[in-house]
Amino acid sequence: MPAQDRVLQLQEAMAAEDVDALVLRLAENVLLATGWYVQIPGLGIAVVPREGAASLFVPEYEAPEAEAVWPGDIRTFPAIRNDGRPTGDVIAEHLEAVARETGARGGAIGFEGSFETIAPASLAGEPNAVALPTQALIKGTFSTDRLVDLTESLEAIRAVKSEHDLERLRTVNEIAMSGLNAFKENALPGKSEVEVMAAVEAAICTQGHGHRGARVVRGYATVYSGSDLASGWQYFRSRTRVIEPDDLVMLELGTVADGYWCDHTRTVVAGTATSRRRDAYEAVRAAAGAAFAAAVPGATGGQVDAASRARCADGGFVQFPHHTGHGVGFRYHESRPQLVPGGEHVLAENMVLVTEPGIYEPGLGGGVRHEDDAVVGPAGAVPLATTDYDLD
Amino acid sequence: MPAQDRVLQLQEAMAAEDVDALVLRLAENVLLATGWYVQIPGLGIAVVPREGAASLFVPEYEAPEAEAVWPGDIRTFPAIRNDGRPTGDVIAEHLEAVARETGARGGAIGFEGSFETIAPASLAGEPNAVALPTQALIKGTFSTDRLVDLTESLEAIRAVKSEHDLERLRTVNEIAMSGLNAFKENALPGKSEVEVMAAVEAAICTQGHGHRGARVVRGYATVYSGSDLASGWQYFRSRTRVIEPDDLVMLELGTVADGYWCDHTRTVVAGTATSRRRDAYEAVRAAAGAAFAAAVPGATGGQVDAASRARCADGGFVQFPHHTGHGVGFRYHESRPQLVPGGEHVLAENMVLVTEPGIYEPGLGGGVRHEDDAVVGPAGAVPLATTDYDLD
Repeated sequence: MPAQDRVLQLQEAMAAEDVDALVLRLAENVLLATGWYVQIPGLGIAVVPREGAASLFVPEYEAPEAEAVWPGDIRTFPAIRNDGRPTGDVIAEHLEAVARETGARGGAIGFEGSFETIAPASLAGEPNAVALPTQALIKGTFSTDRLVDLTESLEAIRAVKSEHDLERLRTVNEIAMSGLNAFKENALPGKSEVEVMAAVEAAICTQGHGHRGARVVRGYATVYSGSDLASGWQYFRSRTRVIEPDDLVMLELGTVADGYWCDHTRTVVAGTATSRRRDAYEAVRAAAGAAFAAAVPGATGGQVDAASRARCADGGFVQFPHHTGHGVGFRYHESRPQLVPGGEHVLAENMVLVTEPGIYEPGLGGGVRHEDDAVVGPAGAVPLATTDYDLD
Repeated sequence: MPAQDRVLQLQEAMAAEDVDALVLRLAENVLLATGWYVQIPGLGIAVVPREGAASLFVPEYEAPEAEAVWPGDIRTFPAIRNDGRPTGDVIAEHLEAVARETGARGGAIGFEGSFETIAPASLAGEPNAVALPTQALIKGTFSTDRLVDLTESLEAIRAVKSEHDLERLRTVNEIAMSGLNAFKENALPGKSEVEVMAAVEAAICTQGHGHRGARVVRGYATVYSGSDLASGWQYFRSRTRVIEPDDLVMLELGTVADGYWCDHTRTVVAGTATSRRRDAYEAVRAAAGAAFAAAVPGATGGQVDAASRARCADGGFVQFPHHTGHGVGFRYHESRPQLVPGGEHVLAENMVLVTEPGIYEPGLGGGVRHEDDAVVGPAGAVPLATTDYDLD
């Protein structure tokens, strides 16, 4: 039961911080603790006691599906209907019951205090946050004033993926490939950036749902093209601009499947690449490869970043000073490891990270960036999936 | 300058709460105060002093576009690059400067303390929240321990739309119609739910960008079909299920354009409707119409809800006990007015709300729901846009 190992990890962190129970309400952390991807933001809660079994609270109608994922204790509450007891009252009763049963009443309670960057739940248009109301709910139901922010521990635990996580990350990376392939097929003269964006997201939706059992899938694509790409590293929106022959076209893509995220970039030429552009493309590909090769357990984020920049310089280009890469998986961008100049995060086996070296210069008539996701191993980071097409 | 009126409203609320400055960091509230739709979540901040001009902080490269929207003070910071000063340091300096300039240093500072439901920024895959780090940032830069949660005031001010808001809401509602029409065209036997979902979202993307100048557009569609729809009010995910002849098919759709949201539902039959289904459809349409007619200034949410349920009963059906409707605009679902049994929110002119009466029963072989967005006026709520097709 993979999630049970996560519960033990969380309990170790709780012991280190002298925390008696941990209340999780963000989709990404409920997923970490139980494997369940929250459907309606806020209406899925995991409670981990200092010792013993964790509990998952879900709406009544979700229990059958939640049981298939989380083998532990499930408690339900009514939701989206006004003919019974208020949702909040039943959630509060469950929290009070768990506080009593686990002896955590009056104790120090861990919570998600510093999550200011959030991975959306299944119903993605309206994410939830943990702010004052959840703090008040925890204080009231656990009869305590002692809240402990466990954000740092959660981020550290999440950075190293379990075998279960890696399997799910492989799935979402494979799904993302359908989007990257649709990008290549559609990034043609005469198409607008938003038409290409729509084609990428539609491919992910139609080919992703059901892939290896994936239930909830969504792509977030940005397509940018033409000479504006020379400063295009800074924009994250697609336009109605129509692609012209021989334009550089770039795709930035976030993909989620059942709560697991990946992050990709592709660049293509809508025509035939000049030798300068081909050289730049080879430079970012080589830089990304050098970064993956350097991403061994024990290396720092700064060392990986330096390997990427050195290789890009070998190719005769200056890698742009945005990050070389970052952790990924429970969110589109995880807080660690950061692959940046001087970065001190130390890599460990089974961390999953991206590298995305970029070159943007007016002389290229745009910019070139390439990004894949890979898992850290003894011989470097191994990509979870990739495409087989080239710049043109 | 519409946003300046919003600043005055915010300042009235601040005076009532004895707040010296207000720091806004959520996309929906920065939009309210300045008209600017934040691009990267967290990297757009509005500061409103007790008196005088408000300020907007954006990344350096966004200043030209932000100036076209917000005529007031703009201060910039570097972002997404590691070769200059850290983003957070420059943001903190700006906050310290505003604190000094406005005399708010050491005062009571308003913040978004209770936003646990969030509208995503332009880069929608990774929304931001206001949690402990932003609280610490405000306390440190304003040299104060006095934070005041202004969530309730913000939600109340937002509930009544300005002429500027109504124009933008009309735009996003028109964009949503392209998704609703794509739904009708695609909800056919042989198509899967996720194929219809993808078609709806693609139509919104390709037809929405550029519509009346819309820059950032996204649809969030859920398609559900067949007899499971009898309990389908509770699910918000599309499946790989293939639509069969004469299935009921339902679309739940959130649409956003430049930060303004709308919320729609349509139900169609993939074939020919039985008289029972047609009666149910007529009942929800009549109920929705009765709710809009009752939605006059001074009415309560409970009265609107009761009008809807009574009309549904007149048609021989029981309206399901989820809400009849809710406010909408700065988020997919706003906190007020709630159109629920006994709801005490009082409607005012230029509130924008949806009604979404539903009937779900095994005897129908599914469920029927219908939802449009409308603006409250003296003669009832007037839809911002609608479609011209029927149940089959």
